[in-house]
Amino acid sequence: MMRKLGAEFIGTFWLVFGGCGSAVLAAAYPELGIGFAGVSLAFGLTVLTMAYAVGGISGGHFNPAVSLGLALGGRFSWGELVPYWIAQLLGSFTAAGMLYLVASGVSDFQADGFASNGYGELSPGGFSMTAALIIEIVLTAGFLIVILGSTSSKAPAGFAPIAIGLALTLIHLISIPVTNTSVNPARSTSVAFYADTAAVPQLWLFWVAPLIGAAIGAIIWKMISPDEPIDNIGGQE
Amino acid sequence: MMRKLGAEFIGTFWLVFGGCGSAVLAAAYPELGIGFAGVSLAFGLTVLTMAYAVGGISGGHFNPAVSLGLALGGRFSWGELVPYWIAQLLGSFTAAGMLYLVASGVSDFQADGFASNGYGELSPGGFSMTAALIIEIVLTAGFLIVILGSTSSKAPAGFAPIAIGLALTLIHLISIPVTNTSVNPARSTSVAFYADTAAVPQLWLFWVAPLIGAAIGAIIWKMISPDEPIDNIGGQE
Amino acid sequence: MMRKLGAEFIGTFWLVFGGCGSAVLAAAYPELGIGFAGVSLAFGLTVLTMAYAVGGISGGHFNPAVSLGLALGGRFSWGELVPYWIAQLLGSFTAAGMLYLVASGVSDFQADGFASNGYGELSPGGFSMTAALIIEIVLTAGFLIVILGSTSSKAPAGFAPIAIGLALTLIHLISIPVTNTSVNPARSTSVAFYADTAAVPQLWLFWVAPLIGAAIGAIIWKMISPDEPIDNIGGQE
Amino acid sequence: MMRKLGAEFIGTFWLVFGGCGSAVLAAAYPELGIGFAGVSLAFGLTVLTMAYAVGGISGGHFNPAVSLGLALGGRFSWGELVPYWIAQLLGSFTAAGMLYLVASGVSDFQADGFASNGYGELSPGGFSMTAALIIEIVLTAGFLIVILGSTSSKAPAGFAPIAIGLALTLIHLISIPVTNTSVNPARSTSVAFYADTAAVPQLWLFWVAPLIGAAIGAIIWKMISPDEPIDNIGGQE
Repeated sequence: MMRKLGAEFIGTFWLVFGGCGSAVLAAAYPELGIGFAGVSLAFGLTVLTMAYAVGGISGGHFNPAVSLGLALGGRFSWGELVPYWIAQLLGSFTAAGMLYLVASGVSDFQADGFASNGYGELSPGGFSMTAALIIEIVLTAGFLIVILGSTSSKAPAGFAPIAIGLALTLIHLISIPVTNTSVNPARSTSVAFYADTAAVPQLWLFWVAPLIGAAIGAIIWKMISPDEPIDNIGGQE
Repeated sequence: MMRKLGAEFIGTFWLVFGGCGSAVLAAAYPELGIGFAGVSLAFGLTVLTMAYAVGGISGGHFNPAVSLGLALGGRFSWGELVPYWIAQLLGSFTAAGMLYLVASGVSDFQADGFASNGYGELSPGGFSMTAALIIEIVLTAGFLIVILGSTSSKAPAGFAPIAIGLALTLIHLISIPVTNTSVNPARSTSVAFYADTAAVPQLWLFWVAPLIGAAIGAIIWKMISPDEPIDNIGGQE
Repeated sequence: MMRKLGAEFIGTFWLVFGGCGSAVLAAAYPELGIGFAGVSLAFGLTVLTMAYAVGGISGGHFNPAVSLGLALGGRFSWGELVPYWIAQLLGSFTAAGMLYLVASGVSDFQADGFASNGYGELSPGGFSMTAALIIEIVLTAGFLIVILGSTSSKAPAGFAPIAIGLALTLIHLISIPVTNTSVNPARSTSVAFYADTAAVPQLWLFWVAPLIGAAIGAIIWKMISPDEPIDNIGGQE
Repeated sequence: MMRKLGAEFIGTFWLVFGGCGSAVLAAAYPELGIGFAGVSLAFGLTVLTMAYAVGGISGGHFNPAVSLGLALGGRFSWGELVPYWIAQLLGSFTAAGMLYLVASGVSDFQADGFASNGYGELSPGGFSMTAALIIEIVLTAGFLIVILGSTSSKAPAGFAPIAIGLALTLIHLISIPVTNTSVNPARSTSVAFYADTAAVPQLWLFWVAPLIGAAIGAIIWKMISPDEPIDNIGGQE
């Protein structure tokens, strides 16, 4: 169990340090910056790489909404849900702290949004709370369908981390302008506390919407899928 | 059968919501926008991810032209063609409606082209109807060859969703300036009705060209391929 | 044999239509264009997709230099070399003609370089003939090492088209500014005849350098590799 | 043994020629340049492609820090460490020399940083030495966890080069603005001698930090992983 929680800590650390790190450090670099497309790729690759690395240990969730959806889908034990959430949050906070240390190592540092999520005034493109709710729910539901489907016994073995990681890239390609993209409450929570903006009071949406979306995704998957044995994101166990 | 149609509905929903969503919401964001390359990646990843997720259920077509080409190639039952087309269209319309809801959640919203396809005045780069016909036919033919080839018994198992998804990315990298890229009548149809432009009267081309192209692709594949057993995009069934 | 030549024709068609097409149609589109990175991705994906599709039929060369290197490496019969080269050139010329038809479907059309290769005044970045020779030789040698290595019995089966396609993407990411990137005489030859520039007299370099590079790559591979059985890019035959 | 050292020489040559080459030749090309995202992709693809090509021969390290971490992780013999380091450095210096030859083939050539790494005044974004130390240590530790995890017996076979190559892409997407990204002492050392800047006196950091990071990564992996047999990046041996 400690090994599993360690794996979730590491994976979520990597997701936040890598995904939010690319946004804070490299997205808006003059002329050569990686833009939203580069940040999208970075978030997806954090999951792709760590799902191959530690997916065989913990299942490779790195996201409280994913853990919930997998539990609802019958792929994950309810008894492990809270410990997983705690490990994910600890990984996220450790990553945000480390990232703050690095990012503040420049003379004209300003935290600004610090890659936090938001709606209304805090939406990158000024999208409303309703738009934010819809897109976070829809994209998390789709994310769970990809996760449950690509790790099912009908899917070819070993490819799930590619499908899941690139699904997260896709999700960011669509929705960074709307909410800066969460679909992951653990990713949203830590960085909100480092932002210069009023990100913390908006955190509720980035718990509620991904969790609802994950539940919807799990239900939809159950409707279209046949009965199947339990499997792991890592593919082999 | 309902499970298959559900899978096609979900996959086509994801393709339109994700692909057209990235175009409408994120392509032209000032400075950091994802551009045509990001949109190309998004369209490809919708297919890559959902082909791994639900390809084992429905075959993962998400496109009326693909269903036609697979039927001509002997990989798909003619009796399921019309139900598949209906499920794909329903998925597309549902996605376009949802996307409209999200996109209109910003104060200065204008639908503009709403990621619809077009030629002549509605071509992003001002390309003629002839150019549009040629490129949609050629690229859909190539797409079908990749689909039929990568799911054939001569190809390594499990990799088809990567080849097929990235073929769609490639197709967009080439042709967004010409027609905004269709190769998929279901993708074109729904968004045309949300556009502020005269996209609907041009819809005929985005049915005719992809269907002709798919038929040509299936015929070419038959010419170069040996006899082989029936297989699925998802790879395993 | 006709099926093999058909597969090489199709694959090389796809490479030139897709790779050069993305360069001619989409690279420099105002604001949203795909740039050199998008063109690099497109070239690589043409090979990745068609190697999965028809690699099991012809081996998936799509490039006279690759056919030569595979023959030198003992993986391809010398008797098929000239027929393969002819099929590749025919595919390339057909693609260039089709692409010209599409590209000229815009009112202010100018062929300009038409994605041809060049050095000196025709180098995108103004690089000398010597620089062009070195980079084309080095990159083609590396390309052949990746091809021979990833299709060898020591490499995991089925992944070669990913390694080879993305190697071509890498090669373009490095060298478009130097020569517009060839490493493939068939790709260079056809488009040179459509260019408004003096690309044809420079064609010799884009035969000589890739062929020398391919030979060097095959020799280096022989030095570091153990004896091994014959295998195919497609992986299974 | 000579075959192994040859494979490491070639792989490290490819990493430096391709990764640094894309940075020097193509990153800042006016309008169409590949930017930091393209350079990130190039570095990752050098490793992905050569790990498939020669990973079955040498294990595919191409990096002194990786060799150290694998030795600490019990996957690599200590007796081969120094020969591997020498082969990697020779490959890197050969690549830097070749790249200099190509890059200087343009009339207005200036070496500038020549893709070297740096902190403080030599950091692209002006980051402090402390920030540079932290990010190089953290990212190399994560890199080693991905390497050790994706090549472990719990991970699906054959996918490790994808996970490892794309981890290097991810690492560059995050950290080019901070240190120009090393995580590889061999990559840093050669190009520093070609730079017009004071890169050589800063080289110590790009040995110390990656080696410490690799050791930390190996230790963390040992803590979360079960006992397992020895395996290779290439996957099969």
